[in-house]
Amino acid sequence: MSLTAPAPTLTDKLVAARDASSALATATTAVKDAALLAIAEGVRAATDDIVQANHGDLVAGEEDGLSSGLLDRLRLDAARIEALARAVEHVVGLTDPVGQHVRGSRLANGLQLTQVRVPFGVVGAIYEARPNVTVDIASLALKSGNAVVLRGGSAAQRTNAVLVARIQDAVASVGLPRELVQTIDEFGRAGATELMRARGLVDVLIPRGSASLIQTVVTESRVPVIETGAGVVHVFLDESAPLERSVDIVLNSKVQRPSVCNALETLLVHERAAERLLPVLADRLRAAGVTLRGDDATRVIVPGVLRATDDDWATESMDLDLSIRVVPDVDAAMAHIARWSTHHTESIVTNDVDTAERFIAEVDSAVVMANASTRFTDGGEFGFGAEVGISTQKLHARGPMGLPELTSTKWIVRGQGQIRG
Amino acid sequence: MSLTAPAPTLTDKLVAARDASSALATATTAVKDAALLAIAEGVRAATDDIVQANHGDLVAGEEDGLSSGLLDRLRLDAARIEALARAVEHVVGLTDPVGQHVRGSRLANGLQLTQVRVPFGVVGAIYEARPNVTVDIASLALKSGNAVVLRGGSAAQRTNAVLVARIQDAVASVGLPRELVQTIDEFGRAGATELMRARGLVDVLIPRGSASLIQTVVTESRVPVIETGAGVVHVFLDESAPLERSVDIVLNSKVQRPSVCNALETLLVHERAAERLLPVLADRLRAAGVTLRGDDATRVIVPGVLRATDDDWATESMDLDLSIRVVPDVDAAMAHIARWSTHHTESIVTNDVDTAERFIAEVDSAVVMANASTRFTDGGEFGFGAEVGISTQKLHARGPMGLPELTSTKWIVRGQGQIRG
Repeated sequence: MSLTAPAPTLTDKLVAARDASSALATATTAVKDAALLAIAEGVRAATDDIVQANHGDLVAGEEDGLSSGLLDRLRLDAARIEALARAVEHVVGLTDPVGQHVRGSRLANGLQLTQVRVPFGVVGAIYEARPNVTVDIASLALKSGNAVVLRGGSAAQRTNAVLVARIQDAVASVGLPRELVQTIDEFGRAGATELMRARGLVDVLIPRGSASLIQTVVTESRVPVIETGAGVVHVFLDESAPLERSVDIVLNSKVQRPSVCNALETLLVHERAAERLLPVLADRLRAAGVTLRGDDATRVIVPGVLRATDDDWATESMDLDLSIRVVPDVDAAMAHIARWSTHHTESIVTNDVDTAERFIAEVDSAVVMANASTRFTDGGEFGFGAEVGISTQKLHARGPMGLPELTSTKWIVRGQGQIRG
Repeated sequence: MSLTAPAPTLTDKLVAARDASSALATATTAVKDAALLAIAEGVRAATDDIVQANHGDLVAGEEDGLSSGLLDRLRLDAARIEALARAVEHVVGLTDPVGQHVRGSRLANGLQLTQVRVPFGVVGAIYEARPNVTVDIASLALKSGNAVVLRGGSAAQRTNAVLVARIQDAVASVGLPRELVQTIDEFGRAGATELMRARGLVDVLIPRGSASLIQTVVTESRVPVIETGAGVVHVFLDESAPLERSVDIVLNSKVQRPSVCNALETLLVHERAAERLLPVLADRLRAAGVTLRGDDATRVIVPGVLRATDDDWATESMDLDLSIRVVPDVDAAMAHIARWSTHHTESIVTNDVDTAERFIAEVDSAVVMANASTRFTDGGEFGFGAEVGISTQKLHARGPMGLPELTSTKWIVRGQGQIRG
């Protein structure tokens, strides 16, 4: 007679993750790095298994009518798996934030006060069918001392299952609990909902993916959320904007990689610069394949521009589409931004220092630039060594996040018997 | 024929607060300090009006059967109003966090990167019938550049209305928008619910008051919350804990001010120290009026101790009650803390440095102490100059909060036409 243990419930998994997290919180950097190297090796060694599981997801995805773009994001081949393994190895080289002293002082009564970085504990991730995120988030969470509970898109469930099993084996191989990395894909949408309700078991939830996924998590979650994502990004060409610099920055911001959140969506142009700048810009943008929409003033200056609607001002196209508006001055540009921006990144091109500083001071976005391409809003470009995501909220982290943003802090007080008078 | 404008809706008020907040975000410290001095003067000058309105609240509160404790918290007299005005003047002396550079660097491509502190924008506060919180939160919010929307307890509505009107007059007297400080008491409980749903209009919500109020806000709010409050605080007396130091720290932690969140609730004692320490401690605690509850081992050592239940381990008494448990070792002490603590403050008394450092490293609370009274968990004691509250969450702020914790950050990028390669 044999007994099979019942499959764990989602709560079982979360409790196991929480229990495991305390072992990781005090693990040394050396142990965590050994786990990461084992993950890279394990993922590499499992290339055939991963490709096979991924093939199953791709076949099912085609049957379900997934778009070619989604299928491409879902696909893992040997080259992509090698890139994943290398990305994990890259995390080994990053500074471990845990234990860093943030500040400290000796109080008048002799108490030694130190604020140190500590892991959150358990990080939850909700994302779409991109299996690279599974490995990416798991390695960043482990390096920052956090257990991680992963809810990937159901379309990647077979691939994620193999990846998580290999990651768990690697973690166990260095003596850490396997339960530090878990998938809850098997619980489907109900599992995602339960994860969002798991206040007390999960310390922070990071949604990654489409604007609608992020909105759902932000409004439904009772667990604190770090909102990442949507970028309705603006460039404002001021009256004094030089032509060549304007063309460089607008082109780079729009076309270098249009599918990402720091790509330009709306161009605002000072009315006294519009006739000088817009015709050249329009030619260059069209030559790069960009479809232009604009307000009436733009359409007078540049023939053939489609009419822009409020939807266009509000939308992150993530494609080769650009909306253009002519504005009377920097105040009107900032008012447009205040109304329509997702407060991700805005840049001004100007040769006037007072206007540049006003724009920098008054625009309320995660990243505000003068005379630079919006594509620089990126953890790698900022020198963080890794990209945890770009926060568009104001609490805890704002803008590109590195490993320290995956940690909390605690205060340590060392005394010699002090009491309060 | 005369027309009266309709009373503003709650959304009108929130939109007005958001609009007003941009004027404050770029206000100089000098202007904000002038507003604070005007508030202090205005509150002083309105002492009679405030006392009269407060009398109305007190009479209504008595009719409604409020407890004497609640009535005392609600009461404002001339001396308390003077203390309030002085507290506002004290905020003038605090360092303005807005504009502080958090970090920065020059990137290889010449981009100048600076992370600066900026206000959240609009802070919401939900609290109970303590009118001093109205003035307190308003002055801290203004100094940190934030508009503030106040939902106080309905029992203090008359008092809060007068206070907010005087604060608004003071703000307007220095040329800032009155709408920076608003009460939504007139919308009752429905108003509190609407405030919690106002994501996009309110940037962060701070609940202050009872554990149940905080729990309601934390679970119902869609606006990001900074959870403050409840402290089920522990002291662990290790095997090596010296008697005199143990008595000093336990007494100070428990009886110096039992009604606050950093007061001791549960005492854990190493089994090899219990017979040495507990009889003396029990005598001293009882002499100070403390009611003792304990586990079986405690009740064997100290006659007359009531039996402690799980409820006692879980409860913040805020009164002269203490629960005591004898544990076999530091691991058991930390396991008890992990199970029952609200992760506010825990302290170990020990003469063993390895045990002290293990406790400090492994206990997951906002403040972890060795050989000090838990009463030191306090913004004033930590040298912050003000007490915004004590955060028991891990996101954004943890432990005592000062003015910088009422701010977010933004990244500023200054370039000379750089584009991404």
